[in-house]
Amino acid sequence: MPSSTVDPSDPVFALHRGGKMAVAATIPLATREDLSLAYTPGVARVCEAIAAEPGLVDDYTWVSHTVAVVTDGTAVLGLGNIGPRAALPVMEGKAVLFKQFAGVDAVPICLDTQDTEEIIATVTALAPSFGGINLEDISAPRCFEIERRLDESLPIPVFHDDQHGTAIVVLAALRNAAALLNRKLGDLKVVISGAGAAGVAVSRMLVAGGVDPAELVICDSSGIIHRDRDRLTSVKAELAELTNAAGRTGDVAAALRGADVLIGVSGGRIPESAVAGMAPGGIVFALANPTPEVHPEVAARYAAVVATGRSDYPNQINNVLAFPGVFRGALGARATGISEGMKVAAADAIAQVVGDDLRADAIVPSPLDPRVAPAVAEAVAEAARRDGMARA
Amino acid sequence: MPSSTVDPSDPVFALHRGGKMAVAATIPLATREDLSLAYTPGVARVCEAIAAEPGLVDDYTWVSHTVAVVTDGTAVLGLGNIGPRAALPVMEGKAVLFKQFAGVDAVPICLDTQDTEEIIATVTALAPSFGGINLEDISAPRCFEIERRLDESLPIPVFHDDQHGTAIVVLAALRNAAALLNRKLGDLKVVISGAGAAGVAVSRMLVAGGVDPAELVICDSSGIIHRDRDRLTSVKAELAELTNAAGRTGDVAAALRGADVLIGVSGGRIPESAVAGMAPGGIVFALANPTPEVHPEVAARYAAVVATGRSDYPNQINNVLAFPGVFRGALGARATGISEGMKVAAADAIAQVVGDDLRADAIVPSPLDPRVAPAVAEAVAEAARRDGMARA
Repeated sequence: MPSSTVDPSDPVFALHRGGKMAVAATIPLATREDLSLAYTPGVARVCEAIAAEPGLVDDYTWVSHTVAVVTDGTAVLGLGNIGPRAALPVMEGKAVLFKQFAGVDAVPICLDTQDTEEIIATVTALAPSFGGINLEDISAPRCFEIERRLDESLPIPVFHDDQHGTAIVVLAALRNAAALLNRKLGDLKVVISGAGAAGVAVSRMLVAGGVDPAELVICDSSGIIHRDRDRLTSVKAELAELTNAAGRTGDVAAALRGADVLIGVSGGRIPESAVAGMAPGGIVFALANPTPEVHPEVAARYAAVVATGRSDYPNQINNVLAFPGVFRGALGARATGISEGMKVAAADAIAQVVGDDLRADAIVPSPLDPRVAPAVAEAVAEAARRDGMARA
Repeated sequence: MPSSTVDPSDPVFALHRGGKMAVAATIPLATREDLSLAYTPGVARVCEAIAAEPGLVDDYTWVSHTVAVVTDGTAVLGLGNIGPRAALPVMEGKAVLFKQFAGVDAVPICLDTQDTEEIIATVTALAPSFGGINLEDISAPRCFEIERRLDESLPIPVFHDDQHGTAIVVLAALRNAAALLNRKLGDLKVVISGAGAAGVAVSRMLVAGGVDPAELVICDSSGIIHRDRDRLTSVKAELAELTNAAGRTGDVAAALRGADVLIGVSGGRIPESAVAGMAPGGIVFALANPTPEVHPEVAARYAAVVATGRSDYPNQINNVLAFPGVFRGALGARATGISEGMKVAAADAIAQVVGDDLRADAIVPSPLDPRVAPAVAEAVAEAARRDGMARA
């Protein structure tokens, strides 16, 4: 029976038929001898060795190059809470990007629960099967607690990509945009519009990367976050303490008055009149997908450097620049977690790949640039060793 | 630092370095256009279609050819409770066999819990990611409840391979052994030594396949299971009701007196004197690995047909003859579960592959015979449709 929801002329559906990924054996299985080595009776000797010396699991199984891409389907792309089954095509996409760019073997795990405790319990239970946990498209504020508690309890890297992948690439892009404009990060007045998963992580990452928190102003749908606002979540209350030293209040237009940088990670719209209030010659990253908070052509009337999340405009801020290399590096170092230093190192590595090609329409590498993931992996592994997070 | 538990000259360890499997993309990812179809923005249209019409997940993701191989590491091979990490090499082995023999993409999921409720909750939560659940190496009696409850609650096939994979191949082998000896299954006096996961499932499968339950005697480590025995588990109490109509008591030697068939699935040893008491010209399957309950050369002194679980003797009763084709068939029919009829159909298909080559030392096909899995898959899918278990 033909489906009424599928457009048969849309090449996306043809491409997705049967999914986008498969499992492959990396050892021969043609003869009885092959079977007796890879399976019984030979495999028992590997099992016994790991039982005696648990660390050998990193050497003699696929965990050392394997990541679970875990979602509950609550915040998928711009589609919202579409559930685990409808989220699966995105997780498969993520998994094949992991493979393509960094040789990391990723497995989609879409959970049939949206309960924080059940998600934590489930991921904890299945963790021995994987070398890392990439949390994906889990809505705020639950994503903060889920990541924090898994990160604390599990001996492997846990990384919520919607937060930190975005934040790493934003920091990389902001470094290069500032360099191009001969500005220092610490001198920029920065406004972040959006205080969901990405907004919170971008705020923290920019401060870790050198932005002055006193001059950082964060807006959510109720306007500027400041110390005296009522009913802030604990995460937003923390941000209010950290940022906006002048205690500015009002809407996003008030926040943008005189600002050098606007980073939109909200999905909302920002009126042209508000953008017009920014200091001239600044920076606008409007990252909502598929509809940026400010149209890039409008933003270009007021800002010297404009970036979006879209592939059809220059300067695409795309997490794929970060997550494959971050996990490749973390797994390579057998890191026990992902520190702020590892994330900053990833951002620096992404920024440096651009090198002498830095232009206002080329502040980040192409998502397809094959140099990015190895550079990020090396920087992340080195930072893991420096920060005492590495087991190898 | 070299490990003291690894023998560097053992080819098993060289083969296992880095594990035995990988993930592969099945779609191109070379250009921006490729990315925009496989990932954002294109993938959103597939997500929206599945959100609107959930059944499309079978068409447009990898679930329709994907199985989770789930263990808690409590009953791995003959090694016992070695935990989830040490179990992983076996689960990877299983996964690559799924791929090799039936093109099924299987993912090892090794759980860091041995609690029945937690295992059920975890598998329930991750089920949307997979088209089927292959339970593996979970100790009895917990395995019975875990399988039963997951089978009842999940809309996909759940199959504990240690039970049903073994049982299917035993039924196939017994059909051919009986045919060779011109005996009818319903006329055979059968003794099963072992009432763990495999023993219980073999008992039920043989009855479903035509063995007379009245003439079936099951022994565990305390001897013959009969109605008047104290402290039987609920599963054994059920078997006691079903079998051993004469109410025989005593040890395995008592059970074997005059028996036509001995099926050992216990891991214990059975003395030669006990085997000597069987009716002449019978059948012995001694399936414990690596040490059969009766050495096959000893068994051959008393029985006309002898089988083991080992690859270095004829007639290897190996689950790999069953599980790849069973899941290929169940997934192909989009079966909601695996019925007794589907298992009997699998056994018949395995037996029939032997065909005119049937000899006392060739009652089952080779584990490498490429005809087996497709034949099993076809028979299982057909049985699923006949039994009303199929959605396609």
